[in-house]
Amino acid sequence: MNKLLAEGFGTFWLVLGGCGAAVLAAGVPELGIGFLGVALAFGLTVITMAYAIGHISGCHLNPAITIGLWVGGRFEAREVLPYIIAQVIGAIAAGGVLYLIASGQAGFDVGASGFATNGYAEHSPGQYSLIAALVCEIVMTMMFLIVIMGSTDSRAPQGFAPLAIGLCLTLIHLISIPVTNTSVNPARSTGVAVYVGDWAVSQLWLFWVAPIVGAILGAIIYNVMAGKEQ
Amino acid sequence: MNKLLAEGFGTFWLVLGGCGAAVLAAGVPELGIGFLGVALAFGLTVITMAYAIGHISGCHLNPAITIGLWVGGRFEAREVLPYIIAQVIGAIAAGGVLYLIASGQAGFDVGASGFATNGYAEHSPGQYSLIAALVCEIVMTMMFLIVIMGSTDSRAPQGFAPLAIGLCLTLIHLISIPVTNTSVNPARSTGVAVYVGDWAVSQLWLFWVAPIVGAILGAIIYNVMAGKEQ
Amino acid sequence: MNKLLAEGFGTFWLVLGGCGAAVLAAGVPELGIGFLGVALAFGLTVITMAYAIGHISGCHLNPAITIGLWVGGRFEAREVLPYIIAQVIGAIAAGGVLYLIASGQAGFDVGASGFATNGYAEHSPGQYSLIAALVCEIVMTMMFLIVIMGSTDSRAPQGFAPLAIGLCLTLIHLISIPVTNTSVNPARSTGVAVYVGDWAVSQLWLFWVAPIVGAILGAIIYNVMAGKEQ
Amino acid sequence: MNKLLAEGFGTFWLVLGGCGAAVLAAGVPELGIGFLGVALAFGLTVITMAYAIGHISGCHLNPAITIGLWVGGRFEAREVLPYIIAQVIGAIAAGGVLYLIASGQAGFDVGASGFATNGYAEHSPGQYSLIAALVCEIVMTMMFLIVIMGSTDSRAPQGFAPLAIGLCLTLIHLISIPVTNTSVNPARSTGVAVYVGDWAVSQLWLFWVAPIVGAILGAIIYNVMAGKEQ
Repeated sequence: MNKLLAEGFGTFWLVLGGCGAAVLAAGVPELGIGFLGVALAFGLTVITMAYAIGHISGCHLNPAITIGLWVGGRFEAREVLPYIIAQVIGAIAAGGVLYLIASGQAGFDVGASGFATNGYAEHSPGQYSLIAALVCEIVMTMMFLIVIMGSTDSRAPQGFAPLAIGLCLTLIHLISIPVTNTSVNPARSTGVAVYVGDWAVSQLWLFWVAPIVGAILGAIIYNVMAGKEQ
Repeated sequence: MNKLLAEGFGTFWLVLGGCGAAVLAAGVPELGIGFLGVALAFGLTVITMAYAIGHISGCHLNPAITIGLWVGGRFEAREVLPYIIAQVIGAIAAGGVLYLIASGQAGFDVGASGFATNGYAEHSPGQYSLIAALVCEIVMTMMFLIVIMGSTDSRAPQGFAPLAIGLCLTLIHLISIPVTNTSVNPARSTGVAVYVGDWAVSQLWLFWVAPIVGAILGAIIYNVMAGKEQ
Repeated sequence: MNKLLAEGFGTFWLVLGGCGAAVLAAGVPELGIGFLGVALAFGLTVITMAYAIGHISGCHLNPAITIGLWVGGRFEAREVLPYIIAQVIGAIAAGGVLYLIASGQAGFDVGASGFATNGYAEHSPGQYSLIAALVCEIVMTMMFLIVIMGSTDSRAPQGFAPLAIGLCLTLIHLISIPVTNTSVNPARSTGVAVYVGDWAVSQLWLFWVAPIVGAILGAIIYNVMAGKEQ
Repeated sequence: MNKLLAEGFGTFWLVLGGCGAAVLAAGVPELGIGFLGVALAFGLTVITMAYAIGHISGCHLNPAITIGLWVGGRFEAREVLPYIIAQVIGAIAAGGVLYLIASGQAGFDVGASGFATNGYAEHSPGQYSLIAALVCEIVMTMMFLIVIMGSTDSRAPQGFAPLAIGLCLTLIHLISIPVTNTSVNPARSTGVAVYVGDWAVSQLWLFWVAPIVGAILGAIIYNVMAGKEQ
């Protein structure tokens, strides 16, 4: 139960921090933080939480990571579903708090703002195609899992994994915000999409399928690369 | 006494560094550092000071943190008030040095510049309502305390807490500068508000109440999550 | 074989991450990450991979580094060529995936976009001369090798080398993107030039020669400075 | 001699990296790195070199730091002058290499570019007065020494001092570039001023006096704060 509470609060922070920076601060004229600031914010949610709750729950904060770590032999099957449920609840709670804060500004319109939702084709920030979005999310999550599996390997320097993993999420955003607004995390996508509804919910399938496929690939590739029995 | 001197100089640095970056460098045309630079500056004051004086005073630099750590069982009651006084003195001294430097530019007007004060409603950078400001400051400080309590937990990797805590302050600013100009620290708010006076002082209550409430909540939540006796 | 797989995937990530950020995200109007974001992205590819695969292959991801470390007595001669081949294959694969994603945006033209290729004279981002480009790439790679040799010296703090090396690549980009679009890595240059062809391929010689010369100089200088027998 | 070589190359990197980023990359239209990128570049020169040569020379790279550490009882008197000479030589060499690269762009004019020199009054980036410049440089260097002395104290976490010190230099730049273009380092100021001559050389006195005064103050304050015998 402590673990699930930690995953819930951790994913709450990931969505509130990352999507919050995107919705509240990215586009402020002249002084706004832009995609660079949003990329940093997402990464910092993971760095801060991994040091804060890593010793409690492992700090996955992401259903694709939980599934990838299970496939890679790092996580027990019976904990997969409870973790995912806790993550999604935390993400949706964060979307609600963000909605509350954002609507404190006159003229706020959740649909018009985009509310940091992920999308492809006409809902991609740069109108990238479905195929580009699919490839991008799969490859990004695949590399994310390689970094997660590798930096938490017992042979890697101890204590640095939260930095490596958080900075990897920052890097992924630096590359791919224009393509899909960057998910690599089905809970993060769900946590804001439910408030926008409509197209955001109908495109949500891709941001569950692609990250999970990528995570599974990454976990397998890391084990092969590291010479470990599958 | 050494501890109080350290808290005083540390909070001096937090306010001079964070508010100094905001007042002097954020809005320079073309080359200015924007909200992203200010967010980084606030975080770096904490990272640098936590490595420099953490072994002397614990490096709170913030009355809300001091109170939160006391509620969370990490700090002794009899030291709370002296720490807070030292922090506020350091913050006000920093405001004075910043005033001295800033007024070395022709045309400087402390009121018109805003002087990095915190505010809500018509004095919020993005005109966010009182309720949005209150929720934002409470939730941000709550998560801040969770990160502080967690990263300094004996089970967390040793030596990394200053990075986690400083980067958390950067993250908090990336999210919430547009809402309240970001406080989460009553000393920081007071250190500049006294030079602006007027509305800045009359709105100061929120930046004492909300961070302290948030810090108490965060300390309690962390202890529950970590399975510790309250 | 595990080592070569690791070098291949690592260099894949360096090129996809660094050049991907440049091609997809740098120039987005208003919110784009600019040269600062690209510099950060290149550095983060190294930080993330060095923690992930450093214990497998050493994480060179760069033919110039592999040659420099061999000259500096840190790497075996018989592994040099296989490493370089794996790096170039990984880089070209990354260029292909990037091409696939980038062409998912209507109107994409690989030649017009520049595709993050390196160049000098009329193909330098700031039209810097051949001599400036040559000096810049040699000196940057020389200092890069000094940092690599020094931070992995047994007398340096353990576990921090990936941060020092990755942040050094970020720093190199902060300085030199306007001059050559920054290579210091023949594999990175090759991985995108082959898709642009034409002038990009005919200027490629400089981005093999200069980084390798610089790397050899840096390795020798570090050993002299550190008082080691050559 | 190894130590002096290390200080020379280290200061070379500080000036080439920090001033190079300022001269070559800060002001590029649309994509330029701005003051934020320059601040990051200066900090990264210190982080990278401190991990690379800290075990050889201590990595001061700055006459004010060398003098401050001597006053603070951390450095031997007989090494002070040789260190300062090596630092100034390295800085001037870096100015020369930067001049060579920068002049590879058509239309380059060292005087018109400013060449990253420090200045006050009409030569301050924001036309800040002599008094503001003096106070700013003294206070910034004072806090810099507190962070240097504190983070290298035997009671501080081991291995993290290069991060704390480098990020402190970034922070100092985030605050004070508009005031003096930020020195806190007489070698850095000298290394570029000699190529501009004229006013740059005649204002150089402030960037020797103020950093040295600040460094001495900082070293004394840290020792008092840490309860150490002077």
